[in-house]
Amino acid sequence: MPITYKQAGVDIAAGEALVERIKPLARGTRTPNVVDDVGGFAGLCALPSDIDDPLLVSGTDGVGTKLKVAFATGRHDTVGQDLVAMCVNDIVTCGARPLFFLDYFACGRLEVEVGEAVVSGIADGCRLAGCALLGGETAELPGMYPDGEYDLAGFAVGVVSRTKLLGSDRVGGDDAVIAVASSGIHSNGYSLARRVLQDEMKLPLDELVPELGTTLGDALLVPTRIYAKAVGSLQRALGDDLHALCHVTGGGVTGNLPRVLPAGIVARVAREHERPAIFDLIQRGGPVDEAEMRRTFNMGVGLVAMVAPARVEDAITALREAGERAWHWGRLGVAAEPGPARVEYT
Amino acid sequence: MPITYKQAGVDIAAGEALVERIKPLARGTRTPNVVDDVGGFAGLCALPSDIDDPLLVSGTDGVGTKLKVAFATGRHDTVGQDLVAMCVNDIVTCGARPLFFLDYFACGRLEVEVGEAVVSGIADGCRLAGCALLGGETAELPGMYPDGEYDLAGFAVGVVSRTKLLGSDRVGGDDAVIAVASSGIHSNGYSLARRVLQDEMKLPLDELVPELGTTLGDALLVPTRIYAKAVGSLQRALGDDLHALCHVTGGGVTGNLPRVLPAGIVARVAREHERPAIFDLIQRGGPVDEAEMRRTFNMGVGLVAMVAPARVEDAITALREAGERAWHWGRLGVAAEPGPARVEYT
Repeated sequence: MPITYKQAGVDIAAGEALVERIKPLARGTRTPNVVDDVGGFAGLCALPSDIDDPLLVSGTDGVGTKLKVAFATGRHDTVGQDLVAMCVNDIVTCGARPLFFLDYFACGRLEVEVGEAVVSGIADGCRLAGCALLGGETAELPGMYPDGEYDLAGFAVGVVSRTKLLGSDRVGGDDAVIAVASSGIHSNGYSLARRVLQDEMKLPLDELVPELGTTLGDALLVPTRIYAKAVGSLQRALGDDLHALCHVTGGGVTGNLPRVLPAGIVARVAREHERPAIFDLIQRGGPVDEAEMRRTFNMGVGLVAMVAPARVEDAITALREAGERAWHWGRLGVAAEPGPARVEYT
Repeated sequence: MPITYKQAGVDIAAGEALVERIKPLARGTRTPNVVDDVGGFAGLCALPSDIDDPLLVSGTDGVGTKLKVAFATGRHDTVGQDLVAMCVNDIVTCGARPLFFLDYFACGRLEVEVGEAVVSGIADGCRLAGCALLGGETAELPGMYPDGEYDLAGFAVGVVSRTKLLGSDRVGGDDAVIAVASSGIHSNGYSLARRVLQDEMKLPLDELVPELGTTLGDALLVPTRIYAKAVGSLQRALGDDLHALCHVTGGGVTGNLPRVLPAGIVARVAREHERPAIFDLIQRGGPVDEAEMRRTFNMGVGLVAMVAPARVEDAITALREAGERAWHWGRLGVAAEPGPARVEYT
């Protein structure tokens, strides 16, 4: 008997079925900039006409081992928002307006329902970010992933006027530091979180943890906040008094905040602040050292804004109006000794 | 003893070592449009100033189970070119000039040498495509991939003037069809190829196959051709007489060519033409039906161009000058019955 592609483990009909289910999801994220696909092989998007000297801003990321929690709980409709968040939060730190997003979904054996749930979460994320889901790739790779598992990668493109680019060049030595709350662990540090909570503490995913007020699975799957609207609100309220933004990803505030600060600057921020209970559970359950916690997890702060000192209240108001919890976290200062920028928890 | 992130399987030092090795590779792909990273979290790229009414064109893809051949042979410096090719060949079908590329590299345990080899191939591909490697993500995901395995996703963005967009709208009912040779299997159909060559025929990857003139491993790892320069050459030579381009990916010519043809059109192309010997080996070894071969593999044709009938020789000359092997493969015609576009092998 002749051999077919399907016998080799690739079910083109399943792939096509998924593509049909994705179409309306992607259509629901369409923006006026999207150009209906005439080329057949690629996604097309016009630039907004109101941006002088436009620069394209792009980022790529994945969801990491947070996916393992989705596999274990069978809940696949939230990790898509994480994927969009991880990419979009990176590009908005430049002040960019998100334009479009593409996703890569790879699995060993394609389950149409699972793929649809994942992409529905991606579409939700795109709507929250105000960008179009312009394309994607669904790859069925026999033998590359165990049944029931998959990986996700995302790509976001935005645009910013060169004259409005945020970053360390704009940062002043006495800027105020504003913290914007995270919703939980977001999408970094799950290998450590799962090691402590599941391997050491043996907490089942489906049981209520009183300290969390929810099951562990639900606490671990809380989607990453998408800060696109928050950044837009800050830009409108503060104009040039918004100087730099830091997306708190792998490395925590300790590792990420220096990426947008000039050399010789120290960010002094409060050690104590409200944070999701899951961080206390992990820290105690490991135990995990305080410094290790702070360079692995966001510890309750998902985005950090450096603003002109006089604009603290305006910044917090703008962030609250965009639906974020935010607070005046500290300020920048010039370090006594020269050296790379760093963070001090005071 | 407190638990660390490293004990949970994530080696930040290895990740940072890889990032340091990637930096010069990415720098080697820099183009004048790249803006040195001031934002810290994202890649920045200006638009070329010579394109009126610019549209952004984007695509994402992976390398599929061709990666399994890289794992088995330990040769990791070619799949990066495949990754760039799969994405860039999609966007150039619109007539777009590639601007930049981002990659996602995910593994279970990070091996710095392997990661560096993969990214060196990506950088090679970016140079061939004339685009900048603007960013990327390296993800160490314990438990997600077996040791020694990884997955890759790529993302390309290009730009085209709205007035120069290629596609089915431009196709004429009597267009000539030009074939551009592939270098081998490219990056689609490897699950079937490996099933036949390795599982059925039991051919070892490291032994010379006389019919191929090389080892099976080398034949399977021949990098996907990148057609960016070829398309630029065609555009310069033919102008508006270049109508549409088809990248032959999963689905073969049978599945892909109709994507850029208007309804009611039939493409009549020659059944017989020169093709890499690997296709004969697979077809005989399966056996695999002729139609299944043609809807799974590129069968020796990596790109198809639809051009004005009078410009066949100019098109072939332009492609040869760009280093491609190309031939007049057939022509379009109006089907006797209405219906979706289709391909006839005559």
